[in-house]
Amino acid sequence: MKTVLPVNLSGRSYEIIIGPGLLQHAGTFLQSLNTSKKVLLVSDSNVMGLYGKAVQGSLQKAGFTVVRAEVPGSEKAKSLEQAAGLYDIMFEAGLDRKSPVIALGGGVVGDLAGFAAATYMRGVPFIQVPTTLLAQVDSSVGGKVAVNHPRGKNIIGAFYQPRMVLTDTLTLSTLEKRELLSGLAEVIKAAVIKNAEFFNWLEENLEPVLRLEPPALKYVIETSCRIKAQVVEEDEKEEGVRAVLNFGHTVGHAVEVLAGYGEYRHGEAVAIGMAAEACLARELELVPDGVVQRIKKLLKRAGLPYQVPSQIAEEDILSRMYKDKKTQEGKLTFALICGIGKAVIKRNVPEDVVLKSLKQGGGSSE
Amino acid sequence: MKTVLPVNLSGRSYEIIIGPGLLQHAGTFLQSLNTSKKVLLVSDSNVMGLYGKAVQGSLQKAGFTVVRAEVPGSEKAKSLEQAAGLYDIMFEAGLDRKSPVIALGGGVVGDLAGFAAATYMRGVPFIQVPTTLLAQVDSSVGGKVAVNHPRGKNIIGAFYQPRMVLTDTLTLSTLEKRELLSGLAEVIKAAVIKNAEFFNWLEENLEPVLRLEPPALKYVIETSCRIKAQVVEEDEKEEGVRAVLNFGHTVGHAVEVLAGYGEYRHGEAVAIGMAAEACLARELELVPDGVVQRIKKLLKRAGLPYQVPSQIAEEDILSRMYKDKKTQEGKLTFALICGIGKAVIKRNVPEDVVLKSLKQGGGSSE
Repeated sequence: MKTVLPVNLSGRSYEIIIGPGLLQHAGTFLQSLNTSKKVLLVSDSNVMGLYGKAVQGSLQKAGFTVVRAEVPGSEKAKSLEQAAGLYDIMFEAGLDRKSPVIALGGGVVGDLAGFAAATYMRGVPFIQVPTTLLAQVDSSVGGKVAVNHPRGKNIIGAFYQPRMVLTDTLTLSTLEKRELLSGLAEVIKAAVIKNAEFFNWLEENLEPVLRLEPPALKYVIETSCRIKAQVVEEDEKEEGVRAVLNFGHTVGHAVEVLAGYGEYRHGEAVAIGMAAEACLARELELVPDGVVQRIKKLLKRAGLPYQVPSQIAEEDILSRMYKDKKTQEGKLTFALICGIGKAVIKRNVPEDVVLKSLKQGGGSSE
Repeated sequence: MKTVLPVNLSGRSYEIIIGPGLLQHAGTFLQSLNTSKKVLLVSDSNVMGLYGKAVQGSLQKAGFTVVRAEVPGSEKAKSLEQAAGLYDIMFEAGLDRKSPVIALGGGVVGDLAGFAAATYMRGVPFIQVPTTLLAQVDSSVGGKVAVNHPRGKNIIGAFYQPRMVLTDTLTLSTLEKRELLSGLAEVIKAAVIKNAEFFNWLEENLEPVLRLEPPALKYVIETSCRIKAQVVEEDEKEEGVRAVLNFGHTVGHAVEVLAGYGEYRHGEAVAIGMAAEACLARELELVPDGVVQRIKKLLKRAGLPYQVPSQIAEEDILSRMYKDKKTQEGKLTFALICGIGKAVIKRNVPEDVVLKSLKQGGGSSE
């Protein structure tokens, strides 16, 4: 039983295919795209060990020649040097303009392989096969690909849509708990900014999700993808409304960098960011305190952090945010909620209010 | 007296503005684009010395803050390392998502700065200010940006349209002769593939062009840009007809790499490539020998090379071409002429005919 979710972007439309056991049929799916027969399969050593053989076997059965590239599993893999390593492999293997690059793994693998696909020979077909909840609900949808600058996350990148996203829900069974929760943070974000009903559903059904019950998981993935696809269809290149997807990310990115890449999972940092930015919305009188508390409570129940860690100074977060991609002309920009299911972009938010909210971001959830 | 040439690409349309003395008004032109006020001005040391001050002054007068970046003037500047250097400067200077990158110089500066603009923060506004004939008629139009792989030209890049092209025809007065002729090769190419009338005009007016007579130069630049814009509008990402612009480039790129970057100017290598690929078209019975002779004769009169250099083995050119971006599934693809002003794409051209033509590429023009 698979679900096919179209993402409509005129010349760059594609389908997200969601279901159990899809990996075994990767080759058949790829055949439908009319690409060259030599493909690059990029993964980290862990995921390659778990699923590389199945994917490669399916591809070969469908007549593809598979060139494999293993990259580190951590955020460190998202460097220009690693991208250069992929270019070398692609060039040496004689991959051409129509040779697909398949990203098998989480957000790190998708972002790095996607950046290489976007820039090798000015762009080759890119296929996402996300194996983490985070990648399935967020990073594999929407076409953002990037590597990090030594001092800033995702500073070097592109908007480059995949030709197909293949989401095998069975891969979540091998995912470690902490990684699953990191993905759940983006699920909660999608609900908070765009769908109050989904937020209610999460409040009521968090336990079945945490127990990985298939119907609950499928509903979570489909609904999150639908929300994200809808926003991206409206504003592919983040010139306007797409920026609401950044809720929790302005503070989150800063926390992620300041704590050192790897200390927090992306979703954990975003959870902290969401709590702090919800406080900010309250300080700006966009939402009552009750909304902030509902968000913090759900994060807490999900086992996610929601407090700015005490070892990071609020002032450092502030100065870090000025280096964020969302900052323009030196003015802080935030995606802020104005209710559960509603978010707006606010430019030029005053520094003192931001600082105050960050300090409150350390408060308890009750 | 300026000419404004629109390039129509739906959401990515822009204008090419052509005229004498435009550099002095760069700031005013940029104001019309609604960008951030901090800009990156990229140039090589030679061009920066000649025109940097004028451009910077105009920008500052219009309220912009200018961050300067000097890069090497040679093809060596088109490396991932040089791009990384630009990212560092941009990041340190606090350039944001709406900060323009201005490429002041020839094709090398445009390709490198354009690649950095395409990938910094997933794309910032890019302005081309071409100062060589080659850049004015070819590389600054059409959105191809790239850096080189150590073993292949333009292997790492993107399609990224500029927001504006500012062509100051006065800059050609400081251009060295050999550089001018290199640009003329692309002018001849444009005529050969798309406009027989323009080819006739070049045969009759080559001398005034070589003497840099302003009306002749202006006509050459405008006509070449118009031809290229027309092709790009039809097929922005080279999925079909745009590939005709590659006439002379399949052999040309191989010659350029095999001779060592810097040995031949780009246009010189393309001139050699055009002669060889014209022979190939004749071997495939697409054109009579008279057409080949007309092309070789015009190249010769323009002072351009038209013979495969004897120190490069034809077999090396052949094997090199298999690494070309245009090669797909291991099959050689060429843009071939079928008359003056007409070109077609031919896939799967037999190796032996290619080899034969390369050997004839060394023949004389009479």
